[in-house]
Amino acid sequence: MSSELDPAFKTVSQATAGRIVISVDAMGGDRGPAAVVAGLALSVAEHPDIDFLLHGSESELAPLLARRPGLKGRVRLVHAEDVVRMEDKPSQVLRTGSKTSMWSTIEAVRAGEAMAAVSCGNTGALMAISMIRLRKLPGVNRPAIACLWPSRGPKPFNVMLDVGADIKADAPDLLQYALMGASYARNGLGYARPRIGLLNVGTEDHKGRAELRQAQELISSATEAGNFDFVGFVEGGDLPSAKVDVIVTDGFTGNIALKTGEGTAKLVGELLRESLRSTVLSKIGALFAMGSLKRLQQRIDPRRVNGGVFLGLNGTVVKSHGSADSTGVAAAITLAYKLARSGFQERLAQRVASLAQPTQDDGQSNNKNGNTE
Amino acid sequence: MSSELDPAFKTVSQATAGRIVISVDAMGGDRGPAAVVAGLALSVAEHPDIDFLLHGSESELAPLLARRPGLKGRVRLVHAEDVVRMEDKPSQVLRTGSKTSMWSTIEAVRAGEAMAAVSCGNTGALMAISMIRLRKLPGVNRPAIACLWPSRGPKPFNVMLDVGADIKADAPDLLQYALMGASYARNGLGYARPRIGLLNVGTEDHKGRAELRQAQELISSATEAGNFDFVGFVEGGDLPSAKVDVIVTDGFTGNIALKTGEGTAKLVGELLRESLRSTVLSKIGALFAMGSLKRLQQRIDPRRVNGGVFLGLNGTVVKSHGSADSTGVAAAITLAYKLARSGFQERLAQRVASLAQPTQDDGQSNNKNGNTE
Repeated sequence: MSSELDPAFKTVSQATAGRIVISVDAMGGDRGPAAVVAGLALSVAEHPDIDFLLHGSESELAPLLARRPGLKGRVRLVHAEDVVRMEDKPSQVLRTGSKTSMWSTIEAVRAGEAMAAVSCGNTGALMAISMIRLRKLPGVNRPAIACLWPSRGPKPFNVMLDVGADIKADAPDLLQYALMGASYARNGLGYARPRIGLLNVGTEDHKGRAELRQAQELISSATEAGNFDFVGFVEGGDLPSAKVDVIVTDGFTGNIALKTGEGTAKLVGELLRESLRSTVLSKIGALFAMGSLKRLQQRIDPRRVNGGVFLGLNGTVVKSHGSADSTGVAAAITLAYKLARSGFQERLAQRVASLAQPTQDDGQSNNKNGNTE
Repeated sequence: MSSELDPAFKTVSQATAGRIVISVDAMGGDRGPAAVVAGLALSVAEHPDIDFLLHGSESELAPLLARRPGLKGRVRLVHAEDVVRMEDKPSQVLRTGSKTSMWSTIEAVRAGEAMAAVSCGNTGALMAISMIRLRKLPGVNRPAIACLWPSRGPKPFNVMLDVGADIKADAPDLLQYALMGASYARNGLGYARPRIGLLNVGTEDHKGRAELRQAQELISSATEAGNFDFVGFVEGGDLPSAKVDVIVTDGFTGNIALKTGEGTAKLVGELLRESLRSTVLSKIGALFAMGSLKRLQQRIDPRRVNGGVFLGLNGTVVKSHGSADSTGVAAAITLAYKLARSGFQERLAQRVASLAQPTQDDGQSNNKNGNTE
């Protein structure tokens, strides 16, 4: 059921004239719909050409929207009576979840009413619904989730994928991840020609599992077709390295690495706070250094790197952290906005199709139209 | 060639009467033999019952030893003319490395002249030499390398294995890792009944690869025979958790997790220093907080957690970081000393043998002799 609460909201056909429409799941995050609505308010202030479809309980959302004058005319509320909970199993959501806000959020992208979707809900369920409703891009075997990683390089973030869409990947899948990750880095993060690395237990050519050595060959032969450079194998310590932009791995390894890195940063942060509280002198020191410490916290703040992107589907889906607050939600929306604005989805589809039909590669690479993709 | 430079050194038969003899590779670390000899000097001061066999170039080592009066009568120098370099391939070292200090270091354990070995050299070569000369423990399919991880729990460290001895592990291998890791945690770290966790991409029973679900069943049926508790699946964020003591995983995943965690801690540390230097106020603050910040640095200092232990061989081998300084070398030696003193090697062999012959398990578990193993 779709309700036109706000008649000032442009219809979708009008909205597409220069407007970027993002479909947002208001429910299912740990902090509830208020944090999501607050995130929308931050986003409209930052992006004058953004509009929203907001999915969830009308009775909960209408009062929250009414309190945000900045959102007037920018949000169309789409009522959904059910919510996917964090503990729901994806298989069950697929059977009984068609009235959930998450389903409705993805459905708007499938129907062409929005250019990208954002949800803070259950990752497994979001991937399952996205797979079933959006379907895989022609030529893609395994979709992937890409995350951002703080970097020592000139740009603030590196990309890593897959961080958990699938628990395995063979060599051709890893090649597709390289291609999709490169396209995402160009369109979402502004890398002109991303440098791809393949995650392994050492950098020498003979290291690691057989599929990694095969993938190494496949990826190094695809650098021109994919418009990227290949730096070869990289190790766990290279994830924030300035020598690589996109790190390719299977979803099992990527998920372990992502959670290990987040957990380590959190542990060091806790120990730092504990340590600064431990003596009177250090408490005084912390007061003097407060400004610098806050900037550090911002730099490694997981909310700023918020937004795992599902790659390899017929539609762009951004998964925000379940615990995201308004800042985190706004970061995820900005990512969806940038990807929608750049025409990422069409570019990625073309890139994957060109690789799936190698005879077209020469024609593609002769097409020097100056686009980043 | 073995030279008795120091006649005050007790012969091995005398030394075994209450003495703990550790075989140490003086060469092949990034900081050269001076750092190793300085590490020995720290160790003898800490452990009055420790003696050393020190392997390497006599002409380099004799002057270094002569300058350390504390080492007089505690070190026997064993000359080895060759050195394994960091870039040497393990296969080549096996063919041509019998005159290296690393080979000589392991050989002393094989011959029963020392109770444990320590080297800062090339990990792959050290594992290869250890495998060939010491051989696998009866009943062990894949040896493993166990590392220490800073913990939020009552004890300062958790254990993770395998972090890179092998690139794969099937379910029975993971069971052996649980058993070996538990035995190491009891004898090296003083855990009475370690809690084992199996690393996975989620904690629900249906998550992850098939071999992990099989391993989950095998490990949960072995808790009594192995004298440990099993907490089930854990995630990357749980590596420093207080709810688990020993984390079991395959060597590929473990190596990526170890290097990702080390790399993240290093990145956060760099950003912290950068941030404290960024303004005059924060520089003043850093001066006040210096004592506390130094204690924090010590707590997450990789030198303190120095020492990967090779498990599943007929002999205890501790791999120190290649870049270890005297503090790091001393930490690795202390670990080797504790394991040698506890009779870890014999206890581990019994434990593995008991599991390989399930009919003996009842007899073993009825043997309530109060030993930790």
